[in-house]
Amino acid sequence: MTFHTFSEEQLRTFTEAVFLKMGCPVADAQLAADVLLRSDLRGIDSHGVARLSGYVRLWEKERINANPNIRVVHETATTATVDGDLGLGLVVAPFAMKVAIEKAKTYGSGWVAVKNSNHFGIAGYHALMAVEQDMVGISMTNASPLVAPTYANERLLGTNPMCYAFPAGNYPPVVVDMATAAAANGKLEIAQRSGTSIPEGWVQDAAGNSSIDPHQLKQGGSLLPLGSDKDHGSHKGYGLGATVDILSAVLSGANYGPWVPPFVAFLEPSKDPVGEGLGHFVGAMRVDGFRPAEEFKNHLDNWISRFKSAKTVDPDKRVIIPGEPEAAAEAERKLKGIPLIDVVVKDLNELAVKMGIQPLS
Amino acid sequence: MTFHTFSEEQLRTFTEAVFLKMGCPVADAQLAADVLLRSDLRGIDSHGVARLSGYVRLWEKERINANPNIRVVHETATTATVDGDLGLGLVVAPFAMKVAIEKAKTYGSGWVAVKNSNHFGIAGYHALMAVEQDMVGISMTNASPLVAPTYANERLLGTNPMCYAFPAGNYPPVVVDMATAAAANGKLEIAQRSGTSIPEGWVQDAAGNSSIDPHQLKQGGSLLPLGSDKDHGSHKGYGLGATVDILSAVLSGANYGPWVPPFVAFLEPSKDPVGEGLGHFVGAMRVDGFRPAEEFKNHLDNWISRFKSAKTVDPDKRVIIPGEPEAAAEAERKLKGIPLIDVVVKDLNELAVKMGIQPLS
Repeated sequence: MTFHTFSEEQLRTFTEAVFLKMGCPVADAQLAADVLLRSDLRGIDSHGVARLSGYVRLWEKERINANPNIRVVHETATTATVDGDLGLGLVVAPFAMKVAIEKAKTYGSGWVAVKNSNHFGIAGYHALMAVEQDMVGISMTNASPLVAPTYANERLLGTNPMCYAFPAGNYPPVVVDMATAAAANGKLEIAQRSGTSIPEGWVQDAAGNSSIDPHQLKQGGSLLPLGSDKDHGSHKGYGLGATVDILSAVLSGANYGPWVPPFVAFLEPSKDPVGEGLGHFVGAMRVDGFRPAEEFKNHLDNWISRFKSAKTVDPDKRVIIPGEPEAAAEAERKLKGIPLIDVVVKDLNELAVKMGIQPLS
Repeated sequence: MTFHTFSEEQLRTFTEAVFLKMGCPVADAQLAADVLLRSDLRGIDSHGVARLSGYVRLWEKERINANPNIRVVHETATTATVDGDLGLGLVVAPFAMKVAIEKAKTYGSGWVAVKNSNHFGIAGYHALMAVEQDMVGISMTNASPLVAPTYANERLLGTNPMCYAFPAGNYPPVVVDMATAAAANGKLEIAQRSGTSIPEGWVQDAAGNSSIDPHQLKQGGSLLPLGSDKDHGSHKGYGLGATVDILSAVLSGANYGPWVPPFVAFLEPSKDPVGEGLGHFVGAMRVDGFRPAEEFKNHLDNWISRFKSAKTVDPDKRVIIPGEPEAAAEAERKLKGIPLIDVVVKDLNELAVKMGIQPLS
């Protein structure tokens, strides 16, 4: 596996050019590129520019609308439903979070369910928009069905990530951003490429047997919920995935469960949809709606210090604060650039040819 | 193990009498008894009347105030912080949820962080208060430190449950009510009593090694987060436990992490508290703040039907909807009574002698 390193600016210019060629308005192209770049900067390589050609293929199939009329279709003082008009989730979700933040500024909190959207990138991006306003940020999305609930031999839920983000004082924000499956698909792809096996408890094969073969998911198997099996609490991971699905889609009017449209363009969406597109749910709460923001941040710093200095099993390891590795990656990659594996570079350069823009290298 | 079965009314009368003897006002005694009874009715035996003598021991140590001045100390239109005045969490949390529900009636949503409280029983009770108003209910609490975060060899988090509850149409509400540890303490106690081993991944011993001995927790070991180990996503269970801790305590001004006061009266609280008592976080969102309630309920019924009828690995099992077993237990136990194991009956009858009330039998 060979890496090529690009500056943030190189990848940003390239990504914006692709979205512009799709017909996105300039502001939308910039925003969508920012969401993808933030993922690469934060070290979440699976959700960044590596997915760009996937979004383009959905657009080619007219399953993404490059110029959507994103709008609030139902609301109260602190709640709203947004219709994404089949736009890029990368643009729809920030719109929804802005609505939530504006409501929170006036009323203390804001909560927005989104229908008729597409995949929104990393959940952390949207939650961090609230953190910048000294708010608690919450974001989640449903996704293409890949996960079998406890006892099931069917893919009924996506990896349905949930994110909670909190502003700290001297430390980076605490960002809990997690798939509700035991392991996300990206980890399987790494094992597939390197030809290694995976731990028990990540996937079951088409017959429903636990498997350590990373290829089983593509051969009719399923991912398993966080907890892996009933003894270890897989009903909890399933319950969290269900929560994300209900808040994102049953509440908004999007498709849920097995009806969620697949991210890959070669799989067709359901012929009998139960809603529109896929769904997100975002929220923002002003910290000073509960206590003065400085007090909160001082105590969160104290929380972080205490956990970072905890006694560990292995003296060479220490307790990691949620969001800490991503903040460290962001600082480093802003300076040193973003490494992409050769297959991603090849994919992006083929995309450049298709879209008629400058290749990366 | 012998069971004795009591009617709901018998146990309710007994429990109210105990709280009255503690000096609780009548309404508080009734409410606290209702929370404990609901737990027993719903089959969550570990959190019901089995804990009654534990609350009394905390009251004897003046760590529970039977006649508290529970009040809102900070608020915006949709957020508030409640000071529980060291009252029973069984009374403080319903107070907080009522505040949240009232805010939601006016503004669409309401969110309340609570400090200076005690253990609040089952999270589901409080979340279901919102469901009865056609709202989404959310409740969580931090708790005595028993769980070691990923890599740690210290108990820094409680089993910190989170609950999300949703009103359905023809089906019982969907109630995701889960500890963020791989297994809650109650399961260890069952294994201790029956002399059996526990699965790998529930606890580590005092040296930080994985153990299948259920007694290790009492001998200096720790519970493990949902996910059990890093490979299986224990950092996610730890992240969820951290989220509960931050929302419940850093946001409200309660104690967090290792400073949370222990539930057992024989362990002293920290001499250097970082806040007041323990903390909860509750919320309510009107379903019709997002879409008409009937639409939501119809789609949630469809969600439930689809999941219930999923293809399973074992044809003798089916996918369980979160909250379904508890609703079934509640229906049955209301008719047939509540079975208590003999050690609990003995404990309650000793309590009756101490408090000078009628024993159970």
